[in-house]
Amino acid sequence: MAALTFELIAKDPGSQARLGSLTTTHGKIETPIFMPVGTQATVKAMTPEELVEVGSQIILANTYHLYLRPGHDLVARLGGLHRFMHWDRPILTDSGGFQVFSLGELRKISEEGVQFRSHIDGSKHFISPEVSVAIQEALGSDIAMCFDECPPYPAEYDYVKKSLELTTRWARRCKEAHRRPDQALFGIVQGGMHPELRRESARQIIDIGFDGYALGGLSVGEEREIMYDMMQACSDILPESSPRYIMGIGAPEDLIEGINAGFDMFDCVMPTRNARNGALFTSTGRINIKSAIFAEDEGPIDPACDCYVCRNYSRAYLRHLYRSQEILASRLNTWHNLHFYLNLMGEVRRAIAEGRFAQFRKEFYARRAMAEPVFSKG
Amino acid sequence: MAALTFELIAKDPGSQARLGSLTTTHGKIETPIFMPVGTQATVKAMTPEELVEVGSQIILANTYHLYLRPGHDLVARLGGLHRFMHWDRPILTDSGGFQVFSLGELRKISEEGVQFRSHIDGSKHFISPEVSVAIQEALGSDIAMCFDECPPYPAEYDYVKKSLELTTRWARRCKEAHRRPDQALFGIVQGGMHPELRRESARQIIDIGFDGYALGGLSVGEEREIMYDMMQACSDILPESSPRYIMGIGAPEDLIEGINAGFDMFDCVMPTRNARNGALFTSTGRINIKSAIFAEDEGPIDPACDCYVCRNYSRAYLRHLYRSQEILASRLNTWHNLHFYLNLMGEVRRAIAEGRFAQFRKEFYARRAMAEPVFSKG
Repeated sequence: MAALTFELIAKDPGSQARLGSLTTTHGKIETPIFMPVGTQATVKAMTPEELVEVGSQIILANTYHLYLRPGHDLVARLGGLHRFMHWDRPILTDSGGFQVFSLGELRKISEEGVQFRSHIDGSKHFISPEVSVAIQEALGSDIAMCFDECPPYPAEYDYVKKSLELTTRWARRCKEAHRRPDQALFGIVQGGMHPELRRESARQIIDIGFDGYALGGLSVGEEREIMYDMMQACSDILPESSPRYIMGIGAPEDLIEGINAGFDMFDCVMPTRNARNGALFTSTGRINIKSAIFAEDEGPIDPACDCYVCRNYSRAYLRHLYRSQEILASRLNTWHNLHFYLNLMGEVRRAIAEGRFAQFRKEFYARRAMAEPVFSKG
Repeated sequence: MAALTFELIAKDPGSQARLGSLTTTHGKIETPIFMPVGTQATVKAMTPEELVEVGSQIILANTYHLYLRPGHDLVARLGGLHRFMHWDRPILTDSGGFQVFSLGELRKISEEGVQFRSHIDGSKHFISPEVSVAIQEALGSDIAMCFDECPPYPAEYDYVKKSLELTTRWARRCKEAHRRPDQALFGIVQGGMHPELRRESARQIIDIGFDGYALGGLSVGEEREIMYDMMQACSDILPESSPRYIMGIGAPEDLIEGINAGFDMFDCVMPTRNARNGALFTSTGRINIKSAIFAEDEGPIDPACDCYVCRNYSRAYLRHLYRSQEILASRLNTWHNLHFYLNLMGEVRRAIAEGRFAQFRKEFYARRAMAEPVFSKG
C-alpha cells in the first residue's frame, strides 16, 4: 500500500479551489486543511486533545529543532514522534531547510549540504539531503519534505536559477535516500519571486516524481500580490492528482488565495504566535486584546464564534490575563486562533463542496471590508 | 440562611483528624481539603474545567493582586469573581494582609491600616480592615478573611504580643464592617512562634466570633517542628464546630501534620510554583524532571498515579518540554502536582472515614522513607 493516497472529491466551478481527501499512515485528512505548527513536538500551549477539539487533522513538526533537541535517535528509541508527543493523527515534518537557511551567519551551503551552528549551544552540525531524510524517517512522520535551498528575498534571477537547480539535485538525492514505506515524501518548488523560475522549478521537481508538491520560500518579505502571483504561476503545472501544499503561509486571506489558486495544505505559526502576543482573529478582522477598549467588555472575542473560549470568557477577562502575563492568556488565545483557522477551513470545504467558493471568497473579504485581490485567471 | 455551615462528619480515633462538610453559597466542600491558589483570578496554567478534573472543590484568590489589577470595582461590575474567571464553585479570598506585609520597605503600618506602594507601578495605596472587607465583598468570594498583621520571623515576644492585639482590633473592625449575607468571614490567629501567644490570639479571635478560624503567619522561615508546635498549640482551643484553616502551607507532609492536629483547610503555591520549576510530587517523594536520568525514561511521573499526565506522557517527553521551555511543560507539571495534592486529600478523607488516619500517616512517611514527627499529644 502506498504511504499516501489523494482523492480529488470536487472542483469549484468558479475558481481553482479543490476539495480532497488525503489518506496517510495515521489516518485521513480532508483538504483544504491548515496544519498547526508544533515546532518542538508540541503545538505551543495546547494539548493533543485540545488540538482535536479545535479541528486539527494534521500537525507539523520541525526537523531542525527536534534533531537538536531531544535528538531524532532518542525520539526513535522512544517509539517515534507520535508516541513521544501523544498525538496519533498525521504529522508532517519539514526538512530543516528553511530553518538552517534562516540561521544566516551561522550556516554555510555547499553542493553536499549545509554546515551550521546550533542556535541553542553553538555546536557544529551538518545536514545533507540524506541526513534530513534519515532524521525524518527516525521521527516517523507521515509526510516528509525534501531538503531544499530557500533563496533570500530579494534575490537576483541568476542566483535563484542556480539555487533552484541545487534544490532539484537535492530533491533527487532525497528521493533516492528515502526508505520508509509508511512515510510519504513531498517535493518542494522554489524559484524565488520569478514566475518563470517557479514554473521551471515545478517542472524539474514533478519530473522526479513525489507523493505531493509544495511551494517553498514564500512569505519571506515579499508583497502579498507577489506571493499570490507565485501561487498562480505554479497552479496549472502541478499535477491535479497530487496534494499541493504552500509552506509557511499565512494570514487567513493568504489561505483563501492559496485555496483559490488550487492549493490544499497550509501551515503557519501566525495563529499560535499572534495569540501569544494578544492578536486575535475574528470574522470581521483582527483585534488586539491588550487594548484599553476591552477593559470592561463583557462580550466574547468574536460573537460569531462558538469555540470554548468564546463560550466562556469575556474580552475583559482575557485582557486581564494578558496584562497579568498569565499562562492561561496564551492558552485561551491560542485555542481561539486555532479554532478560527480550522473553522475557516471547514467553511471553505463546505463552500467548495457546494460549488460556491468564489462567492464565499467575496463574502470573506466583504466581512473584513478588505479589497479582494484580482487575477487574470482563476 | 447562614453564608456557611460546617458539619463534623467523623473524628479519627487515633488522632485529632476530622472529616467534615462545609456548605457555602457556591456549594459544598468536603474537608480536609487543599485549595489551589489562583492569585490573579486564574490558577496558573489551568482552566477551571481542569481544576475540577483534578478534584478542586474550592480555590483561593488574592485580594491584594485583584485590587491592584484589574481592580475589584471592575470585577464587581462584570458580575463578580466567579463569573469573571468562569469558576462556579467556592472561592476563598485572603485579606491582602500577608501580601502587603511582604512588600517590606514599600509599606507602613498604623493603627488605622497599611499604606503601601504597588509592586506593579509604585502607585500609593491604603488598605484598612474596612477597605479589605469592602474589596472582598466586591469580589464576591464565598469566604472572606480578616485583615491581619503578620509579624516577621524571628520576632520578639513583646513585638508579637502587640502585633496580635492589633490583629484582634482589626478583626473586630472587619466583623463590624462586613455586610454581605452570602459571604462567610473567617478570623485569623497570629502570635508568631510563641505557643502561649498563639493561644492568647486564638482566645481573643474566638471571643469576637467568626464563621471559621485560620492560623496565619506560618511557613515564614521557621523550622518545620516549630510550625507543627504552633498547630498543636491552637488545636484544642479552636471550636470543634467551626472549620479550621492553616494559611499558606505547605508541603504534603505539612498538610498531613495539619490534618493530624485537627485542621480542615489548606492553601499553598507549592504544587503550582514547584510544577513550573520542574519539581514534581510522587507517592515516594519529589523528583525534578530536569534531571538527565529521565532523558530516555518511558515511564510516567509516578507509576502509582492515574492522572491525565501520568496516563499519557513519559518522563522523557516532560523533560524535553521543560528543557525547551514549552508552555505545555508548565501545564502538564501543574496538572500532575495539583492532582497529587487533591488525590492525597481524597485518600486522607477516606482514611478518616474509616478510622485509620493514624495508620495512613505512618504509611505516608514510610513510603517516603521519612521520619514521622512525634508529639506529646495527638
